[in-house]
Amino acid sequence: MSDAHSLDTLIEALRRLPGVGAKSASRMAFHLLQHDRNGAQVLSRALQDAVLQVHHCSRCNTFTEAELCEVCRDPQRDASKLAVVETPADQAALERTGAFRGYYFVLMGRLSPLDGVGPRDIGLHQLVARATDGHVSEVIVATNFTAEGEATAHVIAEALRSRGLTVTRLARGVPAGSELEYVDLGTIAHALVDRR
Amino acid sequence: MSDAHSLDTLIEALRRLPGVGAKSASRMAFHLLQHDRNGAQVLSRALQDAVLQVHHCSRCNTFTEAELCEVCRDPQRDASKLAVVETPADQAALERTGAFRGYYFVLMGRLSPLDGVGPRDIGLHQLVARATDGHVSEVIVATNFTAEGEATAHVIAEALRSRGLTVTRLARGVPAGSELEYVDLGTIAHALVDRR
Repeated sequence: MSDAHSLDTLIEALRRLPGVGAKSASRMAFHLLQHDRNGAQVLSRALQDAVLQVHHCSRCNTFTEAELCEVCRDPQRDASKLAVVETPADQAALERTGAFRGYYFVLMGRLSPLDGVGPRDIGLHQLVARATDGHVSEVIVATNFTAEGEATAHVIAEALRSRGLTVTRLARGVPAGSELEYVDLGTIAHALVDRR
Repeated sequence: MSDAHSLDTLIEALRRLPGVGAKSASRMAFHLLQHDRNGAQVLSRALQDAVLQVHHCSRCNTFTEAELCEVCRDPQRDASKLAVVETPADQAALERTGAFRGYYFVLMGRLSPLDGVGPRDIGLHQLVARATDGHVSEVIVATNFTAEGEATAHVIAEALRSRGLTVTRLARGVPAGSELEYVDLGTIAHALVDRR
């Protein structure tokens, strides 16, 4: 682009962010240098701090700065229920419902053979060890309802059922507040099959 | 989100990037911490280096690490022609054509009264000083063909014509390689008016 070598390096570094291509990276770099140099320094320090301090909860695998995360440290929860989610964002969505008071296991990903993500990468071994701790009786598989999330749920259910655990899946059906006319047919078909 | 305070701080910092909302920022932070911690450190250092080393060319206002940028240092160029562009990316696009051998002035923005960006913020005073150096005879206004770019071009043209300079604008018309049937009507109308 120019003889500003450190600008080119910054644009390259920004391209490593997911969803950021060459043009977005240039726009971000120009914006920071032109309008928000303080923001650039704040981001630089935040990256450094997060890399140094954030690691995985030794029990549920989510991000934390402590040995155990806040949820795993809470003794008031129902130790017989364990929800398996793909990401901390999914866990946060479940928490916001207020409808689940058990513990979690966060896969930090999903099975995706085409991208080289296998059972080892989503911590299946660690999940099996967590679920067979003697307290857990039901594992609620709350992976996403995408093709990859469904495949992940299948592999997890196989591994845990063979060890005598009850494995359930979040219900599929018509979203709250929706009109049938505007719901896609696959969802209605699932809601018919799973009617109660 | 969690008790990982430095993770929350990182997500907040990433939201300062243009075009990045809460969900994108979370995804970026999770990606870096889960899959690319080296990338996070590279980005942290790149931000720090760029803030320390990149400043504005004292002649054309683009980003550079030197006193004068590479283009302004080049004595082979045609000092009678000055192209005015909005961003270094626009300058790079003009350079890639190989059709312009004059010098540049980079506004580093555009007039946008609604966002509080006035003539002072785009360096109009500095541009007038640059264009009246005694060598420049023609200023080619190559701001974007958006509403804000056109308004910027108008203000620049007014300021420079009153000082006796020839001010031209990039031609509007039908893009190379396009079929008339698929070109928008406004563009065809402009091409008719500006026919030659």
